[in-house]
Amino acid sequence: MEVLVVGSIGLDTIKTPYGTMKEGLGGSATYGSVAASFFAPVKVVGVVGDDFPAAHLKTLTKRKIDTSGIQIIKNGKTFRWEGHYDDKDMNSAITVKTDLNVFADFKPELPEDFKKTPFVFLGNIHPALQLCVLKQMKKPKLVILDSMNLWINTTRDELFKVLKMTDIILLNEGETKMLCDTNNLIEGARKLLKMGPKYAVIKKGEHGAMLISKNGIFLLPALPIDKVADPTGAGDSFAGGFIGYIASRGRISESILREAVALGSVIASFNVQDFSLNGMTKTSKKQVIARLKELRKLSQFDLPKF
Amino acid sequence: MEVLVVGSIGLDTIKTPYGTMKEGLGGSATYGSVAASFFAPVKVVGVVGDDFPAAHLKTLTKRKIDTSGIQIIKNGKTFRWEGHYDDKDMNSAITVKTDLNVFADFKPELPEDFKKTPFVFLGNIHPALQLCVLKQMKKPKLVILDSMNLWINTTRDELFKVLKMTDIILLNEGETKMLCDTNNLIEGARKLLKMGPKYAVIKKGEHGAMLISKNGIFLLPALPIDKVADPTGAGDSFAGGFIGYIASRGRISESILREAVALGSVIASFNVQDFSLNGMTKTSKKQVIARLKELRKLSQFDLPKF
Repeated sequence: MEVLVVGSIGLDTIKTPYGTMKEGLGGSATYGSVAASFFAPVKVVGVVGDDFPAAHLKTLTKRKIDTSGIQIIKNGKTFRWEGHYDDKDMNSAITVKTDLNVFADFKPELPEDFKKTPFVFLGNIHPALQLCVLKQMKKPKLVILDSMNLWINTTRDELFKVLKMTDIILLNEGETKMLCDTNNLIEGARKLLKMGPKYAVIKKGEHGAMLISKNGIFLLPALPIDKVADPTGAGDSFAGGFIGYIASRGRISESILREAVALGSVIASFNVQDFSLNGMTKTSKKQVIARLKELRKLSQFDLPKF
Repeated sequence: MEVLVVGSIGLDTIKTPYGTMKEGLGGSATYGSVAASFFAPVKVVGVVGDDFPAAHLKTLTKRKIDTSGIQIIKNGKTFRWEGHYDDKDMNSAITVKTDLNVFADFKPELPEDFKKTPFVFLGNIHPALQLCVLKQMKKPKLVILDSMNLWINTTRDELFKVLKMTDIILLNEGETKMLCDTNNLIEGARKLLKMGPKYAVIKKGEHGAMLISKNGIFLLPALPIDKVADPTGAGDSFAGGFIGYIASRGRISESILREAVALGSVIASFNVQDFSLNGMTKTSKKQVIARLKELRKLSQFDLPKF
């Protein structure tokens, strides 16, 4: 089944201990849709200016991603972000500059044939925009939502509104603690489940991920990556891989969700090994499956007899 | 097979967000030997003053721990530690006071029948003392070693000497990064393997544990504990459960080591749910096995077909 991905599309200038990239393809919708395209057909919604390089659009269409939902604003400038990562904490970016540009006036308008897409990933954008997308959708099967500190701090009420319409929320550890006003992650995750979503996925960076619902908890360690070249898009590629896999199965179950968390984690692990989307685009599905097997082996132990 | 545990035995005064304990039984040898006694017969080596309460000694002998290696110093005062934990970071203790007392002049002397014990846990004490123990041992089958920031900083050369005689080193994340002078845990763990040990176990607190060797990596998530009453002794009870289980199998293999990491983690999870050794002493082996099953279920996922 198909996946709809909504979020930012931008040009990223990034410096990490492993190198520098100038105006590379970035944004939550971009990472999310390329990740999802490993497993399912994808439609993407976003906005760019007419300075957006055609080559970047081709990166998406080459993966059969339907880009007809990307608005190209005449005489507009594409969203730009500049940031860097410190060797001591590759988990959090230090923002140098954010130029919203055309993104400042973005109003998502879904093409008619997008509105019935069964699986929806609302990437990390203003909750009012996420809400605006959901209002256009016709009975989606599954809505997953990403957010960030900025929206938790500044647009909490609107975020709560979207949460009520969300099936699965994806947050990182710090965001969970902030939104739920607690230092205990389990307590925080349980609070998330009272805000609307039936499932919460907490991303813990190098410490893996947690899936929690009323059925219980699933804990997945992260694949040890020797060289994290650029952590940008790790969360979005996780989310994309996660929902892409669920869409490929066409339904939700505890075991499918666990497999989806594992595959999201695998896709994210490829993503961070290179700048922009290169970590994903140079990776085959065969490699993804091989690394999934590795990940499974990594965390297996037998039940001894006593 | 039998386990020898060497380390500190002390009286702990501890304050946590969940309560206060005054002069409760503590120390690395105490936690380690009680934990190991879930699975194997234990001999313990340490020192106390003649102010050491008989009831505390009974806590050990009730678990059939051989306490004949505990020196009781006449007119001596037992080692005392006072500390507290902050709600914001239950992973690290804030020390208020340390009174070494009889521990300051401790020279481990093994009873003759202790010297052939096949499995040895060198608890977190001065590396010179750990070395002194090893020199008295007659061809142990397996030596595991714990250490801490203090020794890494102040007695590095002596620590390197013990490491050369160690089979498995157990450190936490921060200690590994400090000893190996790196921010990358995998890189650090690989460096540990060049210092002597064939295996390294890195304890990551609420993020679980990692076992690394030339055979590969095993990652185990931690059981989510709603209420951590007192984290003291978590590392020692992990180590005790770990070596106790290996001793019960009598040999080392990749799968036995993985099971041992899981059981160490389970024992530690019981330990932190109460003050002093109460978390362990009130727990049955049946409960340990039940929680091991839970832990296994927590981290399992199927390999999907594509």
